[in-house]
Amino acid sequence: MERRKPYQLVSRDWKKENTVVEVNGSRIGDDREVVLIAGPCAVENEEQIFTITEYLSKLGVRMLRGGAYKPRTSPYAFQGLKTEGLDMLRRAADKFNMAVVSEIMSIDRIDELCTYADVLQVGTRNMQNYPLLRALGKINKPVLLKRGMSSTIDEWLLAAEYILLGGNEKVILCERGIRTFETATRNTLDLTAVPLLKELTHLPIIVDPSQATGVRELVPPMCYAALAAGADGLLVEVHNQPSEALSDGAQSLYPDQLASMLDPIRYVAALYNRVPDFDKKNRVTNPVS
Amino acid sequence: MERRKPYQLVSRDWKKENTVVEVNGSRIGDDREVVLIAGPCAVENEEQIFTITEYLSKLGVRMLRGGAYKPRTSPYAFQGLKTEGLDMLRRAADKFNMAVVSEIMSIDRIDELCTYADVLQVGTRNMQNYPLLRALGKINKPVLLKRGMSSTIDEWLLAAEYILLGGNEKVILCERGIRTFETATRNTLDLTAVPLLKELTHLPIIVDPSQATGVRELVPPMCYAALAAGADGLLVEVHNQPSEALSDGAQSLYPDQLASMLDPIRYVAALYNRVPDFDKKNRVTNPVS
Amino acid sequence: MERRKPYQLVSRDWKKENTVVEVNGSRIGDDREVVLIAGPCAVENEEQIFTITEYLSKLGVRMLRGGAYKPRTSPYAFQGLKTEGLDMLRRAADKFNMAVVSEIMSIDRIDELCTYADVLQVGTRNMQNYPLLRALGKINKPVLLKRGMSSTIDEWLLAAEYILLGGNEKVILCERGIRTFETATRNTLDLTAVPLLKELTHLPIIVDPSQATGVRELVPPMCYAALAAGADGLLVEVHNQPSEALSDGAQSLYPDQLASMLDPIRYVAALYNRVPDFDKKNRVTNPVS
Amino acid sequence: MERRKPYQLVSRDWKKENTVVEVNGSRIGDDREVVLIAGPCAVENEEQIFTITEYLSKLGVRMLRGGAYKPRTSPYAFQGLKTEGLDMLRRAADKFNMAVVSEIMSIDRIDELCTYADVLQVGTRNMQNYPLLRALGKINKPVLLKRGMSSTIDEWLLAAEYILLGGNEKVILCERGIRTFETATRNTLDLTAVPLLKELTHLPIIVDPSQATGVRELVPPMCYAALAAGADGLLVEVHNQPSEALSDGAQSLYPDQLASMLDPIRYVAALYNRVPDFDKKNRVTNPVS
Repeated sequence: MERRKPYQLVSRDWKKENTVVEVNGSRIGDDREVVLIAGPCAVENEEQIFTITEYLSKLGVRMLRGGAYKPRTSPYAFQGLKTEGLDMLRRAADKFNMAVVSEIMSIDRIDELCTYADVLQVGTRNMQNYPLLRALGKINKPVLLKRGMSSTIDEWLLAAEYILLGGNEKVILCERGIRTFETATRNTLDLTAVPLLKELTHLPIIVDPSQATGVRELVPPMCYAALAAGADGLLVEVHNQPSEALSDGAQSLYPDQLASMLDPIRYVAALYNRVPDFDKKNRVTNPVS
Repeated sequence: MERRKPYQLVSRDWKKENTVVEVNGSRIGDDREVVLIAGPCAVENEEQIFTITEYLSKLGVRMLRGGAYKPRTSPYAFQGLKTEGLDMLRRAADKFNMAVVSEIMSIDRIDELCTYADVLQVGTRNMQNYPLLRALGKINKPVLLKRGMSSTIDEWLLAAEYILLGGNEKVILCERGIRTFETATRNTLDLTAVPLLKELTHLPIIVDPSQATGVRELVPPMCYAALAAGADGLLVEVHNQPSEALSDGAQSLYPDQLASMLDPIRYVAALYNRVPDFDKKNRVTNPVS
Repeated sequence: MERRKPYQLVSRDWKKENTVVEVNGSRIGDDREVVLIAGPCAVENEEQIFTITEYLSKLGVRMLRGGAYKPRTSPYAFQGLKTEGLDMLRRAADKFNMAVVSEIMSIDRIDELCTYADVLQVGTRNMQNYPLLRALGKINKPVLLKRGMSSTIDEWLLAAEYILLGGNEKVILCERGIRTFETATRNTLDLTAVPLLKELTHLPIIVDPSQATGVRELVPPMCYAALAAGADGLLVEVHNQPSEALSDGAQSLYPDQLASMLDPIRYVAALYNRVPDFDKKNRVTNPVS
Repeated sequence: MERRKPYQLVSRDWKKENTVVEVNGSRIGDDREVVLIAGPCAVENEEQIFTITEYLSKLGVRMLRGGAYKPRTSPYAFQGLKTEGLDMLRRAADKFNMAVVSEIMSIDRIDELCTYADVLQVGTRNMQNYPLLRALGKINKPVLLKRGMSSTIDEWLLAAEYILLGGNEKVILCERGIRTFETATRNTLDLTAVPLLKELTHLPIIVDPSQATGVRELVPPMCYAALAAGADGLLVEVHNQPSEALSDGAQSLYPDQLASMLDPIRYVAALYNRVPDFDKKNRVTNPVS
């Protein structure tokens, strides 16, 4: 691995210590901590989002994920509630002292997302949307950069480099499965990317087993595996009624499934002397407004 | 192949006859014609673009490709001359009676591209940039939609569906290779997509062997193969001095290589009773302004 | 492409002129000729094989393919008629002055195959069965070596090297599609491999669009594309009653489909001044016995 | 996942309880145990194999892996010491009370392998060598069946079905990485296959992170991840002098690396109330002879 690397600012050679991104008291990338980001694939309505947020809050979850702008393969699929969805998400998060993670799909929505969300997520289909990445380099919010579904590690780090070059170092990498010949799962989760990235870059790396597997039952073991591989955290889809979900129902956890995962998460995190953020006491809301 | 299709407007079931996109007298998708789009990967300077355009013009080429906004994997690579490049491209094309094909990377440049170019190209990395696709559905210019490097045929047609849904039916599909395990070539050119798409959709389908192979010597045979598979046209990179090219030099044809390809192209096109657009007499400039 | 190559005997650097494998008067690898190998996926019964062989013979086809030992993904699928099938195949071929191409799956059947067949085919699943390859290096019959479904060009050439190292230079490479994420076709036919191999090796290279596409309608255009890419020949599945076939029915051509392909094959072959072997006059049976 | 499955005997529906394969007192597939199989990629000489075997024995390792017949991509690479290597392996194992796991490449070596080894390993390139699988269905030794590098879960289970159909139920599945576009690692380790297989089949499933990653430093975290995903055991390459190894040196662990992995392995195994076989007291040699 002594080849010349095509990136610089994201490199562990450039900056030796871990970059830690702080969100609502959670420290993403801190090697004494692991974080849990949870929530529905998409915000669907007030009842849904307030119900699930309250539930997550009681478990100690500090970061709420939820899509308001949804990049859907089909133009006929549910595209998200947009501004209305962001507003619900924000109000739910504020009520239960949580931070908001939501997807940004185009430059002209950055201001809006910055108003409503604490972390802006770049989805797999936009990982090489360079004008968007450049624009995100100019904001002062953390960016959660998902791996392109057919992107190599190098291409992914170069995408992050675009953001850092603009001045924003708060980038969180998120492995979400790559596209392969295997069709038994939605994607192939590449957990080896976790220790590899820990060597190559100072940026935090979290894992999304929901998108990767596409199958609810496979999410818990892959969460434990991700942490055992050294991931800094997890991003999971949870829905109060998965069977009624407008998108990604089959891969959304039931609320009590997530609850039953907290103990194993604690246990595996301790392998590396890490503590889950849901067990920390210092939660303080960090509202965007 | 009797499964229910996830798309509608792009489907051959929806519209039986071929969609023909006319550009500068060339008829893309006409089953009596094949088209040749050629030019450098990127506009680099006046001398380069005027030299190559004049050369192409003499061969009868009617559509000039050239990138002014370049999506590059590395932020440190040449990113294109932007507006200045578009201006050069337009002036060169006008001088030699050619049309301009150039890449659009973000919504905020659509107006500019519409001013300078005749066909707006969506690159492989933006095939699932849905806000961009929606915006391109509202313009009155042809859109050349390259296949995402790991996109299935269905995903590609659904991306086109986004554009048609907005009201713009002038969509040209362009196969440019998919990402596979094979590293001997830059991508794996999926020529079977050509006859498959001819069955599934009424939209024209052209092939870009330069991006697909990444190796100059492989471009001519793959051009002939593309036409033998039934493609409506070719998109190739040509540079007056490939060894000096700022991007994609190794896959750019030498001018005389392209010249020597015209006869074989004529010959293979005739397999399906088609005539290359470079042999048509009715070239009339169709300036954007 | 100036890297050091991992193979030697198969390399164009080692032997500059094309290796030509002669079978029943056909010259595989001769740059003035293209060959057509046709027949059913599997030998099923006397009536089937004699009917189709007679038909093929009338078209001028000189090499009959047919499986007697079938490597099937499922142990519950039809596994071939074995010796009985080989015997039928040989008798049909002899009656109509054709040569036999049939698959070898294990070392202990090499003698038998050498008795009944003129060309021994190594299937995609056995491309890296090195003991088998070594054993085939010791026989005096041509070996048709299919590409492993996830093999790189280098791995494929190294597999051929195993055979040549044993002393048998009569190796015919056969591209039959590689495994990718795309599911619209059975495999992804990698036609770029054809001109690439022509540069790297002196061995003949033919193409099997039946296995590659898995869809009958896609076979003719991909045959023409293969020849336009420079292939030395074609291997296609034809069945007298595809709908009744015990294996691969969906990708088997109807007899009259094949008949209608002869003219286009002639036409495309002429692009490179090549003549199809089915138009040659010198057919002489070359029975194994 | 309610689709009709193409296999039967290997299915969890056919047999509800786990199949447990006993080797030298280790119980592979027992949900209260995890196993560790370790050793060099290839047997190279007496000193090497006795040194590493003694070391492993002291750690409590009960199963020694070592290749005597090596399927190598290049015919010019070291092909293994064959019978001589098997003999060394057996003597080293006997001296230190260990069992032997070694690769079988062809039918004609099955008797020999059965004489020297306790478990016969089928490598990735032979997963679809059906005559070999059928022959292994007739022996009374456990078979370690590695996943084909581009095999789907279904194809893998069908390969196992071939063995079970012959009467041999002692099949151990081994995930060893699949071939994808990513080149940063040798293969892409598909750990999601572990919980998926636990649902689909009663057969044990172990993981080989050495072959999968190709990089020594990535092996320990991927071992922990494999166990956290629910694997029944690990197969790792260890060499007394990796830098001198005749094959796979870069991915072979140093002996003290393996020693330092035992505690984390114990810890992660306990997540599922499992105990590593290297901590069991009942080791009894189970020599083949």
